[in-house]
Amino acid sequence: MSTPNFRKGTAAFSVIFLFAACQTFPTPADRDTLMKLEQFEFIGGNLLSTKKELQLNYILEKIKGKEITEGMKTGKFPPAMHFFRARELIEQSSVFNIIQKMPKGAGLHLHEYALLSVDWLVKNATYLPNCYICFTPMDGIRFHYFSRNQQKRLANCSEWILLEQYRKQIQNVTEFDNSLYRNLTLVTENPEEAYQSQNIIWKKFANVFTAASSLISYAPVFKTYFYEALKEFYHDNVQYIEIRALLLPVYELDGTLHDKDWSIMAYQEVARQFKNDNPDFVGAKVIFSVHRKLNNSEMKTMINEAMELYKKFPEILAGFDMVGQEDAGHPLWYFKNELLIPAKMGIKLPYFFHAGETDWEGMSIDENVLDAFLLNTSRIGHGYSMNKHPVAKQFSKKFDVPLEVCPISNQVLMLVSNLQNHPAAAFMAEGHPMVISADDPAVFGARGLSYDFYEAFMGIGGLKAELTTLKQLALNSIKYSAMSAQMKAETIKLWLKKWDQFLDVVLHMFNSDEL
Amino acid sequence: MSTPNFRKGTAAFSVIFLFAACQTFPTPADRDTLMKLEQFEFIGGNLLSTKKELQLNYILEKIKGKEITEGMKTGKFPPAMHFFRARELIEQSSVFNIIQKMPKGAGLHLHEYALLSVDWLVKNATYLPNCYICFTPMDGIRFHYFSRNQQKRLANCSEWILLEQYRKQIQNVTEFDNSLYRNLTLVTENPEEAYQSQNIIWKKFANVFTAASSLISYAPVFKTYFYEALKEFYHDNVQYIEIRALLLPVYELDGTLHDKDWSIMAYQEVARQFKNDNPDFVGAKVIFSVHRKLNNSEMKTMINEAMELYKKFPEILAGFDMVGQEDAGHPLWYFKNELLIPAKMGIKLPYFFHAGETDWEGMSIDENVLDAFLLNTSRIGHGYSMNKHPVAKQFSKKFDVPLEVCPISNQVLMLVSNLQNHPAAAFMAEGHPMVISADDPAVFGARGLSYDFYEAFMGIGGLKAELTTLKQLALNSIKYSAMSAQMKAETIKLWLKKWDQFLDVVLHMFNSDEL
Repeated sequence: MSTPNFRKGTAAFSVIFLFAACQTFPTPADRDTLMKLEQFEFIGGNLLSTKKELQLNYILEKIKGKEITEGMKTGKFPPAMHFFRARELIEQSSVFNIIQKMPKGAGLHLHEYALLSVDWLVKNATYLPNCYICFTPMDGIRFHYFSRNQQKRLANCSEWILLEQYRKQIQNVTEFDNSLYRNLTLVTENPEEAYQSQNIIWKKFANVFTAASSLISYAPVFKTYFYEALKEFYHDNVQYIEIRALLLPVYELDGTLHDKDWSIMAYQEVARQFKNDNPDFVGAKVIFSVHRKLNNSEMKTMINEAMELYKKFPEILAGFDMVGQEDAGHPLWYFKNELLIPAKMGIKLPYFFHAGETDWEGMSIDENVLDAFLLNTSRIGHGYSMNKHPVAKQFSKKFDVPLEVCPISNQVLMLVSNLQNHPAAAFMAEGHPMVISADDPAVFGARGLSYDFYEAFMGIGGLKAELTTLKQLALNSIKYSAMSAQMKAETIKLWLKKWDQFLDVVLHMFNSDEL
Repeated sequence: MSTPNFRKGTAAFSVIFLFAACQTFPTPADRDTLMKLEQFEFIGGNLLSTKKELQLNYILEKIKGKEITEGMKTGKFPPAMHFFRARELIEQSSVFNIIQKMPKGAGLHLHEYALLSVDWLVKNATYLPNCYICFTPMDGIRFHYFSRNQQKRLANCSEWILLEQYRKQIQNVTEFDNSLYRNLTLVTENPEEAYQSQNIIWKKFANVFTAASSLISYAPVFKTYFYEALKEFYHDNVQYIEIRALLLPVYELDGTLHDKDWSIMAYQEVARQFKNDNPDFVGAKVIFSVHRKLNNSEMKTMINEAMELYKKFPEILAGFDMVGQEDAGHPLWYFKNELLIPAKMGIKLPYFFHAGETDWEGMSIDENVLDAFLLNTSRIGHGYSMNKHPVAKQFSKKFDVPLEVCPISNQVLMLVSNLQNHPAAAFMAEGHPMVISADDPAVFGARGLSYDFYEAFMGIGGLKAELTTLKQLALNSIKYSAMSAQMKAETIKLWLKKWDQFLDVVLHMFNSDEL
């Protein structure tokens, strides 16, 4: 790295200065100072830039300005459009192209059945021998791998059909495979018509998950799926991931069922293997997650199991969370007795609670974002509604508990339509602790983290977001991960090397005229 | 008023307490305190409630909870829907019914040609003798009142047609009148299809304004329109309004043109007359406004004129502002030299700048929200983007410079689709200074302030907003108005009397079972 130099303002700026600077009513003479202060407050605004960073930032902001101005003029600005319609436009964007090349650090908010492009499931998993399909009355599909004549009929599903045979009988296999794709993602041409309420899209979302899990829970698919997922993130220049996982039983062809230990060890084995094959990848961790519709006694069992697993698999298990549609499940506080068991027993079990993935202010679910702190969460999954909770926000800032912001997920799952209105815009402007993640890229038709970084950089941050914003977001993702201090230090070192290569590569893409 | 009693927490709470309370990481035992603290921070949260207020709040929150839960379930929640589709649902809401009855104080952000339901223009103004219409190539219409055979052809418009004659010739007058309505509002069945970008809707918006102004600028219509507008606000239980007015020439049938002085005096005369006829109405003021597309020398002329007018008409003229699509006009800073003339001359001219009516963070226009403070604004028109400007936000709070929040306008003009995502939600949660207004109710198919209060109360505030929220918003509108201190005191007195009557009326509507 070359010597850092001062880019914006001086190190004398600080958050305290924001308050101090606003004690007297401003005059026109204060303009430069106040504008610098706002830039400084912005996420990444207090990072110093190297010469190369300054050069790339100059180019990047020029390209970005052009793309934003074009979007304003045409009314076709990807972050203001539904991702299903915006994706193609995003792929044509030079900013996106640069973001793809950038080392993005860690993906901290991801779910185990939606990591890898669905193409892989359709083109590989469903083409394996012994793969059967059945159809549910509500337009869903389920898969299962059986030894010949060992099929067991699933409740609420048609008879099992062997895919190998079925594909031989039908005329248009491509069309059939496309229909599988449609059943394994939320992607559709007219999302507003297909999904007329949050409840409707969450039903389909759950359906898609169950369908995908029915493929992925087959032991041979399970490991390959995770390996391929790591590869997809690796190719998207992501160095490390943490996945929320239900640790559902994984089965063999002969019907043998594997338990949670097996799944965790499988994740660990695959992650190690992948790291062996690709030494510039750091690894993966698992956050054991259960559905928020459990009852109290089920939750108690799960918490006890989580404590055991955390003790047993310290390398790979990061902690505990709850999943499912927040508005439709129990509030965190409903489980207070169960969630406080580890603390009462003096046993460590870090929490990574989803909280505030809601538009519904003042309902009982809306307290999750505050209760997550009372229950000692290490991060906040989404925290979409935290802007409506000044006390929770204060704790988040003061105790450096970051939000895991997943722009495309929040848009597709109908919390917000135009990402310029995402509440994280205010958090970015205030330099609030946060990371960017992708939640369920496979289900949304995205890949890796680049699409979400693009939305955050162009839509949520607007033209105010600069190269240092991207750098800070990547650095944050390492800082706020569940890695050990030593592993973080090594990852930062690796990341800095990649960052330097990234600067060189992108600077070479542009000829000297533009500098 | 009965004796106030303590409802939430104690007076020991304060904003400082927010910071103090968040210095140590919270535990489950802190829950009640922290939840009370959030309630206390919420706008109106530190108002004490009388017994009657407590009773009504109990009922109101019950009804509100039912309506919100119903909206969650059905996916038809008015604030989450486009107002053109939500209006009918809103009119069926019991919460809306209560809000209509409530004394709402002052409407501080309104424009002179969009005050009164368009029905009145169509059914009355266009039926006056000598009213001519012409059609522009871009689907617009213009009106003019001429003495017979004195018509002067308008550039870019068809020949003038006498409406009296025309209506005799056509078969379906109702259909024709409906078409006039459609040309004088933005209302349409499928807004997403009709208005595919902010630029497109702003073009139609400007077109609608020009059409309306061509009727209202006829002297006999001008005064009656304003009188009827005051009546509509009065019937909506609004006590006082401030209107942004371009003060364009007003004409007589013989072609005589009246200047700005005439218009101001006409507003004053009508306001006085209305107050005479309805002593429980307080009055109106005018904020002289010019288009933000002027050049510097035109602006200089206007500022000089504004200073003179402000001196000449102290009773009715409140100050100065700029209007038109912010993203398409000059930034405030472009006019810094002109806007600083009064300060340099030591002459008072209060500013009420529109600022931050944009989604486009980081563009030059986006600095308006900070520059408005540097130019010493008294209020911020919209301030929609202020959540992205921590420094401007700090000034607004510290120096009690309120935002004029216009929910329906922001939705119709495509800044935000679901009003639960309006940035004012965070401002409400933080007790930030703000008022609710309607901007251009006539153009949006609204009436008075009730629709916007409903959206703010149900959508922006969610279930957290209570009766004290409504009370605070009404009190704010008086506090932040341009009225003199004495007039404010009188208005508060009048308002408190009306508030007490409102409590009685609504409490009587519900039988004692519900209490």
